[in-house]
Amino acid sequence: MTDKQAKDAIKLHQKLKGKITIESKIRNLKLKDIQLIYTPGVAAVCEKIHKNPDQKYYLTSKANNVAIVTDGTRILGLGNIGPDAALPVMEGKAVLYKKYGKVDAFPICLNTTKKQEIITVIKAIEPVFGAINLEDIESPKVLEIADELQKELSIPVFHDDQHGTAVVVLAALLNSLKIVKKNTKSVKIVIAGAGSAGYGICKLLSFAGCKNIIVVDSSGAIYQNRLENMNNYKSEIARITNPTMQRGTLEEILKNTDVIVGVSGMSGILSGKTIQSMNKDPIVFALTNPEPEVDPKIAKKAGAKIIATGSYLYKNKVNNAIVFPYLMRVVLDRKIKKITLEMLYRTARAIADSVPKKDLTHDNIIPEITNPRLYKNISSSLKKLEIS
Amino acid sequence: MTDKQAKDAIKLHQKLKGKITIESKIRNLKLKDIQLIYTPGVAAVCEKIHKNPDQKYYLTSKANNVAIVTDGTRILGLGNIGPDAALPVMEGKAVLYKKYGKVDAFPICLNTTKKQEIITVIKAIEPVFGAINLEDIESPKVLEIADELQKELSIPVFHDDQHGTAVVVLAALLNSLKIVKKNTKSVKIVIAGAGSAGYGICKLLSFAGCKNIIVVDSSGAIYQNRLENMNNYKSEIARITNPTMQRGTLEEILKNTDVIVGVSGMSGILSGKTIQSMNKDPIVFALTNPEPEVDPKIAKKAGAKIIATGSYLYKNKVNNAIVFPYLMRVVLDRKIKKITLEMLYRTARAIADSVPKKDLTHDNIIPEITNPRLYKNISSSLKKLEIS
Repeated sequence: MTDKQAKDAIKLHQKLKGKITIESKIRNLKLKDIQLIYTPGVAAVCEKIHKNPDQKYYLTSKANNVAIVTDGTRILGLGNIGPDAALPVMEGKAVLYKKYGKVDAFPICLNTTKKQEIITVIKAIEPVFGAINLEDIESPKVLEIADELQKELSIPVFHDDQHGTAVVVLAALLNSLKIVKKNTKSVKIVIAGAGSAGYGICKLLSFAGCKNIIVVDSSGAIYQNRLENMNNYKSEIARITNPTMQRGTLEEILKNTDVIVGVSGMSGILSGKTIQSMNKDPIVFALTNPEPEVDPKIAKKAGAKIIATGSYLYKNKVNNAIVFPYLMRVVLDRKIKKITLEMLYRTARAIADSVPKKDLTHDNIIPEITNPRLYKNISSSLKKLEIS
Repeated sequence: MTDKQAKDAIKLHQKLKGKITIESKIRNLKLKDIQLIYTPGVAAVCEKIHKNPDQKYYLTSKANNVAIVTDGTRILGLGNIGPDAALPVMEGKAVLYKKYGKVDAFPICLNTTKKQEIITVIKAIEPVFGAINLEDIESPKVLEIADELQKELSIPVFHDDQHGTAVVVLAALLNSLKIVKKNTKSVKIVIAGAGSAGYGICKLLSFAGCKNIIVVDSSGAIYQNRLENMNNYKSEIARITNPTMQRGTLEEILKNTDVIVGVSGMSGILSGKTIQSMNKDPIVFALTNPEPEVDPKIAKKAGAKIIATGSYLYKNKVNNAIVFPYLMRVVLDRKIKKITLEMLYRTARAIADSVPKKDLTHDNIIPEITNPRLYKNISSSLKKLEIS
């Protein structure tokens, strides 16, 4: 990001004083409307819901409300900057939710980083929302929170860093592989980062049939029975990846592989030289925001065939913004109670298919967020799904 | 409320599917806007707040956001109907907040009724809001919650049932006394109900100089050293009211008094006969919603000089809706950190003064919510206030 971009962003935010606003759906409210929407009329509505709780989905905003919940511990690539400084990101998500998914999303930035307290708060605020979107909370805490909440809530818990990122990466990968004429089963994939995104991508790519995945974290390649810097989710990663138990640094592991997916939260950790050590036609997804693992220009010079980032400054925007508004729209409309791998897989294929074959090129692997096919394709791909 | 009104209310709510919606302030969002409001531009905004936390008031929606928090335990006069059935009331408040105060209010209906958990949740969600509005939570729990939160939060805690109701009652009383030519010092006032509203009214009326107040609850008149059915707040009521330590039922206590303020949560508890036993020109505020303590027709027949309810079906709407949007507007604009009795007193006088003397009649004691003088008068009455 240039200084000019930073200045423009701050100027725009100063002007807006908040990017979202809560509006009444009743234009030109009259005194006689107040009799219906407030006292005494509203009492009849309350009593109807009290007698038949399911009516809350038809008489209130709940069905379309989503809480974007963060504790500010892992905001973009900026790290633990706290709940106040996190709010602009959450408001930005709310803007995208509304614009592309017609979803009413409200930011909930929490003044606590304690796992149990976060769970308590989200369980407490459930009545107002049709779904929860967990956002930018440090891992593995957030994975435990997502798992526990999904068991206890009767609304779906969408964990964007885990679910949304995995979907957009798989979509981009499916299209990239068509271009370089490699296939999911044999392609060698390295994922840099074993947080929420790394875990989610690893699970979904495995579900999609990828057999050669190695996940690398700050301690190097993750393999079964590694002792240092492990947790339950990394153990699961170890079980389903790295079949030959390779060890080594990111640089060492990347040699003779086909795909690098960077979700490390660290900018600039990929060198041109490392990319040169990869197999022919390397695919480089450097997805850390605001600054990627490698400058796209350096990656290109080093011979990367396909380069993608998570930023809106470059082509090939592998950013979950293409996923969450549309997927959430379908989830809310169909009253889906749980996000599953099958659902994410179908969504990824629907997104990939939104780029027509004739338009598929090395710098057009993923549709723009404005692509009208996105909603149509995701919606119809999930229509056939059995919802438990 | 008639069956027709109930049906109309339900029909309107079915059509709206929620009375509020979250909108983006950026009309016609372009891809290049996403670079500024989302990644990468938003990172500069986050960093600015991280470095200087006060910037959150200028770069996010916090300054204008209010959480309307309830646990659903004391919804209107309907009682403990739970957080789901409470949502329509909270959305209705959000509509009024927006329409009359340009405040962005969002309902937080809690799936817990535990005091400590409610405090934990509100403390946790503080970062997103410029103020908290506590609503329809059972007393005395809510009074304890309000007190504790005001100590711990750096944003104001407006307890509408306590603060808002007290203001509108005092405003209506000041104007009613002008009509019947009685004065605050000597007038005999009975308050039926010792919950949040009864406590708040009693405190504010005392602050305003009323010397003869008796508060009656389900165990009869509250007096010092009463043993049954007491709590800290009722003890405080006993200390500042009922100087002659009267005992008795509502009916007994009402004899030879001038004003009855009904905030009992029980409809129909006032008979015409009881009203007849009051002094000349009795003032009857029957404020329980959705159905008042006495039907205005019965009160009139019994000789009440001035009759008010909390409902939008009758004249003299003594409903806190006239208070909260305007007062909150001023509180947010002036970044007031705490609601004080002085502030409430000034607001009540400003509201009373919004009815010009020439317009003051027995059925026009309080301005309509649409009265443009309201904001102007409240704002200027608080301008002179020293904010600590």
